[in-house]
Amino acid sequence: MKVYLDNNATTKVDESVFEAMKPFFCEIYGNPNSLHDFGAGTHKKMAQALDYLYDGIRANDEDDIVITSGATESNNWVLKGVWIDEIMHGEKKHIVTTEVEHPAITATCKFLEQQGVEVTYLPVNEQGTIEAHTVRDFIRDDTALVSIMWANNETGKLFPIEEIGQICREKDVLFHSDATQAIGKLPVDVVRCNLDFISFSAHKFHGPKGVGGLYIKAGRKLTPLFHGGEQMGGRRAGTVDVAGMIGMGEAMKLVTSPGALAHEENYVRALRDKLENAILEMEDTVVIGGTENRTPNTTLISIRGVEGEAMLWDLNQNGIGASTGSACASEDLEANPVMNAFGSDSELAHTGVRFSLSRYNTMEEIEYAIEKIKGAIKRLRGISSSYAYAPESHKSGL
Amino acid sequence: MKVYLDNNATTKVDESVFEAMKPFFCEIYGNPNSLHDFGAGTHKKMAQALDYLYDGIRANDEDDIVITSGATESNNWVLKGVWIDEIMHGEKKHIVTTEVEHPAITATCKFLEQQGVEVTYLPVNEQGTIEAHTVRDFIRDDTALVSIMWANNETGKLFPIEEIGQICREKDVLFHSDATQAIGKLPVDVVRCNLDFISFSAHKFHGPKGVGGLYIKAGRKLTPLFHGGEQMGGRRAGTVDVAGMIGMGEAMKLVTSPGALAHEENYVRALRDKLENAILEMEDTVVIGGTENRTPNTTLISIRGVEGEAMLWDLNQNGIGASTGSACASEDLEANPVMNAFGSDSELAHTGVRFSLSRYNTMEEIEYAIEKIKGAIKRLRGISSSYAYAPESHKSGL
Repeated sequence: MKVYLDNNATTKVDESVFEAMKPFFCEIYGNPNSLHDFGAGTHKKMAQALDYLYDGIRANDEDDIVITSGATESNNWVLKGVWIDEIMHGEKKHIVTTEVEHPAITATCKFLEQQGVEVTYLPVNEQGTIEAHTVRDFIRDDTALVSIMWANNETGKLFPIEEIGQICREKDVLFHSDATQAIGKLPVDVVRCNLDFISFSAHKFHGPKGVGGLYIKAGRKLTPLFHGGEQMGGRRAGTVDVAGMIGMGEAMKLVTSPGALAHEENYVRALRDKLENAILEMEDTVVIGGTENRTPNTTLISIRGVEGEAMLWDLNQNGIGASTGSACASEDLEANPVMNAFGSDSELAHTGVRFSLSRYNTMEEIEYAIEKIKGAIKRLRGISSSYAYAPESHKSGL
Repeated sequence: MKVYLDNNATTKVDESVFEAMKPFFCEIYGNPNSLHDFGAGTHKKMAQALDYLYDGIRANDEDDIVITSGATESNNWVLKGVWIDEIMHGEKKHIVTTEVEHPAITATCKFLEQQGVEVTYLPVNEQGTIEAHTVRDFIRDDTALVSIMWANNETGKLFPIEEIGQICREKDVLFHSDATQAIGKLPVDVVRCNLDFISFSAHKFHGPKGVGGLYIKAGRKLTPLFHGGEQMGGRRAGTVDVAGMIGMGEAMKLVTSPGALAHEENYVRALRDKLENAILEMEDTVVIGGTENRTPNTTLISIRGVEGEAMLWDLNQNGIGASTGSACASEDLEANPVMNAFGSDSELAHTGVRFSLSRYNTMEEIEYAIEKIKGAIKRLRGISSSYAYAPESHKSGL
């Protein structure tokens, strides 16, 4: 049996999304900017896709949703645009973010620090999140931007976006959220949360890879990351990925309908909880950040004595795909930054395994996965020099 | 009959390209960076695609070809990367380019000028190109980069890339070429031409939209435009568009085989010449930049008394898609910058119509197009206030 439990890394494209995209490769292939029917043939479906995107995140008509190549582009764009507009050519010099953002935020912030920008990385608490008042405490007169993720990619833990939005409005500071892991998992309402910008990627919600978006509230300036042609109202040059945009719209429609969100909240959550509870029955296991206030599909579990990468290889032998954390960091062997943020000791820092589910998973798959995961834990603990022979006191010190 | 003559704006995806991409939406959908077979299942075809890209542009194995979202990203990346590396954090402050680059270059240069970078825009000569020695004359001690397109998108005119590469090597200046309109139309050899960087877009050579590449010669530093995960060896963060990359590789293989280039040079050129010669039989028509030294598929023709946009609308009624110039600029009514560069008077500046062919065009289509184009010219001249009643001396002043 094949069981895909790595949906926070990427997702299967929904068959109906692919069907919506298909005509736009070999049949309706014109450039949407062209003044002929080959180009204009794309307009109706592109407009419909935009409608789905606006509806999906509850944007106002006068706001902009700009099609990008994905959340990495969107995140880089916001941070570098604000750097140029508000810091290089303005009076501001400070950005507030967290220690557990996706690398597209943290690596970009490190780059900006080299350019003289001051960045505050808020640490997360034991629940893997921050309290909104912390943001208020760290906003300064020269703060240009607050950038805080909606849901963490590794733990699924949620951040208090609505309260932070309220604080940013009071303090008159721009507010961005990387909503990549939130879309399709919980309601996202950019207006209610007073957001100026959000980033997202289609491939995290059963759309295609290589396409995403940046929401920009009406009236917000943001120097382009891509200068050039006048596409996207001059906000983002380059021929639009027509098929990708249409696929993303279709995917957004599918995952943000009330029925779909309820299915995520009930069905997917039940599968995740079943899997998680079965692993927690084994001793010396713990859910990083605890089980409250998470996206319904994600669990990051630390399994003492089991090196995360070894676990992945063992599961892979049994057809199960999981992750030690963000796929964006998984080719190197550095300790997972989220595990570090939780203050895990150096041994525990490498023991996290992330299971992230989707609506495509079945109870049968989860039962199969539980059996294989339990087997893997026993096998790997049996050969672990740090666990198998450790004193009982050590084992339960978790 | 439908006749698509706007292949410099974008192209139909080849059916076999789409077939190569298809499994990577709903079947083999893992993240290539993941440590499981769902991700690893993508590796073989991705490696093959890279092989096709390296072969297609004759890159050395130790060079990098980074997958981007298209030439607009690649162009922005080179210019902004060089700005940060060599100008902001270096001793250089000058860039040499031409007046007729794609907006992704010229608009980015305008942005860099606002940041204090000095840019020389070389004018083109009456043949629509530059002579290589001009570049030598304008390279200064503080020149960081020469960026000159391989082939112009509007006229198809070629630039002396090999000679300019030789000059840049002698002068020890980085050399970039936007090769978007060259790939698949003539041989592109990055090593022989001493290039440090070239940009390209898959959708200009029968690959998908939303994916392209940046060639980076071995050893060349270039600060990323997208910071984040470690994809592409840390050069460009973000989950790779797996299907797009595989499609681009397949498209590159198809268009750069010796047979394909010969077909372009013979078959496509013959169709283009037939179309062009038929239009030139009508009085007061001229090929902008002349007929020598062009890509085989393109002609930009000025037809006195015929407003380009009116011509497009007329042709569109007959199922023919053409352009007044770059689709990237065609939503506004500014005079075509290439026409301006040729010193066209204000009346002629709006009379250019670009026909750009591909291997999918047939002789039957071209014959149909010729008939309709001639009819349109007569119709539009008949209602032109500046042409129909103009003295003969004016008409032949072209």
